[in-house]
Amino acid sequence: MSERKTGIWFIGAWGGVATTSVVGLVALQKEIAPLTGLVSELPLFQNVPLAGWSEFVVGGHEVRQIGFLNAAQELVEKSNLFSADLLSAVAPVLEEFDANVKQGTLINVGSMIEKISCDDAKKQIGETPAVALKRIQSDIEQFRSNHQLDQVIVVNLASTEPAMDLSSVPETWSELDAILQSSDTSPIPASSLYAIAAFKAGCAFVNFTPSIASELPAVIELAETRKVAHCGRDGKTGETLLKSVLAPMFAARNLQVLSWVGHNIFGNMDGIVLNDPENKATKVHSKAHLLSDILGYDLQSLVSIEYIESLGDWKTAWDHIHFEGFLNTKMTLQLTWQGSDSILAAPLVLDLIRLSELQQRLGRSGIQEHLACFFKSPMGTTTPEFALQFELLKQWVEEVTQ
Amino acid sequence: MSERKTGIWFIGAWGGVATTSVVGLVALQKEIAPLTGLVSELPLFQNVPLAGWSEFVVGGHEVRQIGFLNAAQELVEKSNLFSADLLSAVAPVLEEFDANVKQGTLINVGSMIEKISCDDAKKQIGETPAVALKRIQSDIEQFRSNHQLDQVIVVNLASTEPAMDLSSVPETWSELDAILQSSDTSPIPASSLYAIAAFKAGCAFVNFTPSIASELPAVIELAETRKVAHCGRDGKTGETLLKSVLAPMFAARNLQVLSWVGHNIFGNMDGIVLNDPENKATKVHSKAHLLSDILGYDLQSLVSIEYIESLGDWKTAWDHIHFEGFLNTKMTLQLTWQGSDSILAAPLVLDLIRLSELQQRLGRSGIQEHLACFFKSPMGTTTPEFALQFELLKQWVEEVTQ
Amino acid sequence: MSERKTGIWFIGAWGGVATTSVVGLVALQKEIAPLTGLVSELPLFQNVPLAGWSEFVVGGHEVRQIGFLNAAQELVEKSNLFSADLLSAVAPVLEEFDANVKQGTLINVGSMIEKISCDDAKKQIGETPAVALKRIQSDIEQFRSNHQLDQVIVVNLASTEPAMDLSSVPETWSELDAILQSSDTSPIPASSLYAIAAFKAGCAFVNFTPSIASELPAVIELAETRKVAHCGRDGKTGETLLKSVLAPMFAARNLQVLSWVGHNIFGNMDGIVLNDPENKATKVHSKAHLLSDILGYDLQSLVSIEYIESLGDWKTAWDHIHFEGFLNTKMTLQLTWQGSDSILAAPLVLDLIRLSELQQRLGRSGIQEHLACFFKSPMGTTTPEFALQFELLKQWVEEVTQ
Amino acid sequence: MSERKTGIWFIGAWGGVATTSVVGLVALQKEIAPLTGLVSELPLFQNVPLAGWSEFVVGGHEVRQIGFLNAAQELVEKSNLFSADLLSAVAPVLEEFDANVKQGTLINVGSMIEKISCDDAKKQIGETPAVALKRIQSDIEQFRSNHQLDQVIVVNLASTEPAMDLSSVPETWSELDAILQSSDTSPIPASSLYAIAAFKAGCAFVNFTPSIASELPAVIELAETRKVAHCGRDGKTGETLLKSVLAPMFAARNLQVLSWVGHNIFGNMDGIVLNDPENKATKVHSKAHLLSDILGYDLQSLVSIEYIESLGDWKTAWDHIHFEGFLNTKMTLQLTWQGSDSILAAPLVLDLIRLSELQQRLGRSGIQEHLACFFKSPMGTTTPEFALQFELLKQWVEEVTQ
Repeated sequence: MSERKTGIWFIGAWGGVATTSVVGLVALQKEIAPLTGLVSELPLFQNVPLAGWSEFVVGGHEVRQIGFLNAAQELVEKSNLFSADLLSAVAPVLEEFDANVKQGTLINVGSMIEKISCDDAKKQIGETPAVALKRIQSDIEQFRSNHQLDQVIVVNLASTEPAMDLSSVPETWSELDAILQSSDTSPIPASSLYAIAAFKAGCAFVNFTPSIASELPAVIELAETRKVAHCGRDGKTGETLLKSVLAPMFAARNLQVLSWVGHNIFGNMDGIVLNDPENKATKVHSKAHLLSDILGYDLQSLVSIEYIESLGDWKTAWDHIHFEGFLNTKMTLQLTWQGSDSILAAPLVLDLIRLSELQQRLGRSGIQEHLACFFKSPMGTTTPEFALQFELLKQWVEEVTQ
Repeated sequence: MSERKTGIWFIGAWGGVATTSVVGLVALQKEIAPLTGLVSELPLFQNVPLAGWSEFVVGGHEVRQIGFLNAAQELVEKSNLFSADLLSAVAPVLEEFDANVKQGTLINVGSMIEKISCDDAKKQIGETPAVALKRIQSDIEQFRSNHQLDQVIVVNLASTEPAMDLSSVPETWSELDAILQSSDTSPIPASSLYAIAAFKAGCAFVNFTPSIASELPAVIELAETRKVAHCGRDGKTGETLLKSVLAPMFAARNLQVLSWVGHNIFGNMDGIVLNDPENKATKVHSKAHLLSDILGYDLQSLVSIEYIESLGDWKTAWDHIHFEGFLNTKMTLQLTWQGSDSILAAPLVLDLIRLSELQQRLGRSGIQEHLACFFKSPMGTTTPEFALQFELLKQWVEEVTQ
Repeated sequence: MSERKTGIWFIGAWGGVATTSVVGLVALQKEIAPLTGLVSELPLFQNVPLAGWSEFVVGGHEVRQIGFLNAAQELVEKSNLFSADLLSAVAPVLEEFDANVKQGTLINVGSMIEKISCDDAKKQIGETPAVALKRIQSDIEQFRSNHQLDQVIVVNLASTEPAMDLSSVPETWSELDAILQSSDTSPIPASSLYAIAAFKAGCAFVNFTPSIASELPAVIELAETRKVAHCGRDGKTGETLLKSVLAPMFAARNLQVLSWVGHNIFGNMDGIVLNDPENKATKVHSKAHLLSDILGYDLQSLVSIEYIESLGDWKTAWDHIHFEGFLNTKMTLQLTWQGSDSILAAPLVLDLIRLSELQQRLGRSGIQEHLACFFKSPMGTTTPEFALQFELLKQWVEEVTQ
Repeated sequence: MSERKTGIWFIGAWGGVATTSVVGLVALQKEIAPLTGLVSELPLFQNVPLAGWSEFVVGGHEVRQIGFLNAAQELVEKSNLFSADLLSAVAPVLEEFDANVKQGTLINVGSMIEKISCDDAKKQIGETPAVALKRIQSDIEQFRSNHQLDQVIVVNLASTEPAMDLSSVPETWSELDAILQSSDTSPIPASSLYAIAAFKAGCAFVNFTPSIASELPAVIELAETRKVAHCGRDGKTGETLLKSVLAPMFAARNLQVLSWVGHNIFGNMDGIVLNDPENKATKVHSKAHLLSDILGYDLQSLVSIEYIESLGDWKTAWDHIHFEGFLNTKMTLQLTWQGSDSILAAPLVLDLIRLSELQQRLGRSGIQEHLACFFKSPMGTTTPEFALQFELLKQWVEEVTQ
């Protein structure tokens, strides 16, 4: 049996989610981690020819200097994730993977990310989009050839970018390409540059962040031309997952939601970046539209995200849902969610990599709308209810297994 | 236009849920209540030829002496339900309906219900099942003829019965009928006697309680013979609704639920009855099987129900869900539900009446499995997930409207 | 027995707290309200010669056009406060009291209050501080003489003012007085003008709001000269009360509070005003210093206040307290408070009026530091722990009763 | 400088609280643990001549076979307490202390404890109280002489005993002594036998459990005769601590508590034992009287304690407090406490040992009522409010330092 080899290329490789994904991946390769939390390990997928855990190799882009092991140790110290035994078992492989991590770009990442980036990354400040694109593409391609990989899946896990005015970005790839080749500055954010470079390198792309990335008409066109699969945006791990599960209940019962207040507190790097109002706006927007999509009317909805250092990676969300029932009676549902963001996100990242790899292998390119249940703002579908999104995934399983 | 007239026959007519249903029904007839909380008023149903609110007349059986208006005023005083204006607008009709309420039976209702029943009801103690059945059937038929009703829908809203050993109840109607006609005591509880009487009178039957009622093979057979529609058991209004909505999320994410603890506190009549361990056992059983049905494995699940007088009709439920995610990490979701039990249940009762009336009018008799989303322990289906249950209802709408 | 008569002069007379205080006062006069919530009705006070409820008459200043009855009815409709019976019993007296309400001043109240003020109030825009002071003082004195009152207690219940730079306000009364008499614009906010007018009229003054009012050195001096009693600031009704009760527990147990996050949501007029960042700053400041005062170290503390319309007067606060115990173990206490702001505040307002009346009658003028337990930022004391503040009140009771 | 040496004798030495106390003590001796959570390390105590951490040596009685290190490792695995580094640093000393642990008695400990006890302990079944007393006393005295200890403090941390009928236990020591010397079976529980043995050996005694121990008139008399200090009962670590802090707030505000519901869930050994209804009764009783003591009236109060295995040592308590304020308005406070029972208890145990050691050294024998703030059911005082209990401790500090 000739074994496939697949590369994973993380944008934001040494961040909390990527690091946890890599720790988990290696633990799965060593068969010292249970399969809990992995959607692609549900019985539903038992006849789906997904890639085995052992076939993956990791590389990526970063703008900070840390290394997988240091990043993982910080997660242990600040947030009490992973056991000491687990970490020492995976440590040697983490260090191998570090060698595959290259310098990311700082184009349009916002001042907060610039501030926390390392000196080497800062050296790139001022590079033109054409240079950045070429560099990124070449890094990915070299990773592929060095490791003799059948495929590379590029996954955006970088910090949320500040919102940009994209109204004058052209809608066709040829026009956008022309601008990118000729301009000194980029009209599009870093996430979109990474997506373009991935597509030009013929790689499937997963956008796990709220950044725009591949969701620009010109970039969608490019993906079609290059016959690559892509999906996004913003992994649905905690409070929004609950909203997409609970709001349909209020709709199905004809209960009028009067207000839905959600307060999120946490203390990881993501929290530091989101504490910057510029970056937070992108995130809050990604969380806000959902309720009126599901309920069919506007309601007073409030989402706050605040950095509370002591919580580390432990996202705590309080939701207060005020609703009206029969005969004008007001009632309340409150919930408190205490989950580790990285631990919730990492298995979904690994799932999306396997599902993208298969899709690409089967030649089913374009936007992967059947992956809607993984995302806060799913591309290519208007089904906001989680249960119905999961039905889409089930249908896909039926298609690929019959 | 020849107007239809439909009767509603409540078992437990002056209880909190029935009273609120009647207050709501009359308010709908007078167009002074918004449609919030009524599933059958969702846009989904706009082409379904459901009965209009004005065509309903109310009667029923009771074992206490109260009257709709007194019962409603008690709900205002103890639980702050309904505005003073609403109540005075509906009061005259409530008093009319009181005249249609007849004495219920105390056969196998348990010592707690016997204790709180009125003297007139106590006079029936000792009646044979044959006598009780005849009396109940005749009350319903007389209500139908007195008011020239096209149909009567019988709805069980009586207090939860204590569990009975039903292992020796025969599985065919002819055998059970023979026993009921000849014995001094009844092998089946009051709820089943009411169902049998309803079926013999040719009426559709809704079991909104956890009691067994029509869910005995012999009684199901009788319903088929008589070509009547029936559905149940146990209206899904609060904590269990949330479970059937949330548990599928944990399943779909492959998150391992370690324990699910639910504490329910409330202070209405239902609470007093459930405070009796005999009656509580039936209720807790109805709530417990759901989680393992959805999750596919056994877990430590605890449901407590306690009578806290000061809360009146306001059911407060705290759920603590302890679950394990990737890499053995334990996380927590807590929720607190503060809802008025009667206000949540009443519109569902009215929905079920309309949906049963149409089904019976269309000649679609038997167990109505498409109504699973209304019940904690739905008859005729093994789909425990709320979202999928709601899809069954949507499919039915498609069937009856095409 | 020659009966005393005492006036209550509310600044912000038709606001939620003043209206609820008046509804409650009249209900107490008619003996149709229980004494629950009134500190001054605790057994502790049984030998303290406090004023009886029947001796009070109400007047005040306002900048909106509403009337006590309309304001009360709005509280019923939006927030489900008071029963219909209670309101109709007190309605005639409310209307009598309306006649005693005069136009307030808009000097330095902030743009939000200006916006929601009525046309008559807006006519005053531009008045000099000297004119305003004279007008206010004269309104109070006329009220006293019209009703032949022994005393008038002035109580500030107006909306929170935006913060002002008070660094150049002189520290002596003679200097401040000179400026107020000669300037076109006022260096101090409306609340301080009301306090000055009250003192010049020889009235005790209660500042139930976070505004600065009498807590300026020059104004404190004036109170001493005029021999009047005064106290403040900011009635301690909900979340801050809990903090002043709970934080001492963490201190006494040597548990290290890592972060204390408090989110407050509510939908009354106070909420609208506080939604303006200018006004909110004053409020948040009043809530923030407490924790480090009690705990003795700085910690990450966050207080948010947001206007959620559907909640009406029902303040809901979620507090998440993250703390570290022995051997570096992090633990959590969460609490949710659901209380009606007006219902919580009103009895304290009535208590403070009685306590101030007695103090003034006994000739015990100056800052009333023994009332610290009523306030978020108590004047004249550095004891932030609620239990110890309550001990101060007990000591005062011993003094005045021996 | 002649260094003192003090022994700590734990009843229930290898249980969660004792093990955590020992881990903490050794970590303090090695100066690798912060002082957080230790009351006796508050600035308040800086001039109190308390024992230094280095002077303590540990021994005790047990009925199971585990060892300190295994017990500690189980706490790590099940409940994620202590870091791996901390545990390996203290491990050698834990093993030394293991040698000082002797077989406890099974007299009147209840069937649940008998069931989980080891074979060696079971061999003692049937011993007379006289034999048990002699054996216990001798174990303690031998520990003292072997290690040349100035004092031994005996601390009861054994599992809660089932309630016994103690109505016929004589009130004087001479009568009780006579019975104990002559009877085959004991009229008093194991905890009281341990207290008696401690007193006879001249040791101070701390009862950190809800068991009766030294709180029998005859045993109190013995303590006086032997001039030893003792205190108890039931360490106040979580939910009850909160009650003794929060209930005084409702009392001071004249808010009527309508119901106070507390649900406790946790999964440690204590939880297994308390899941037995016999043992639970003693515990629930210890928690229940507090509210009416503080509030001065009876209210519906409910305390449930349930064993939820997945929670390990993490006690989660939900409290729902329903209260009435002014004008009959009902309001709610809910709180959720998530704390590690052992981590909360252990520093208090160490505090009580130091405070008892000093007291005994100063010759201040008898019931130590100034330690009320440490206990759910404090001996020798009727002050149930936590803040006032803490004032008692402050007064004691003043006494012993002046």
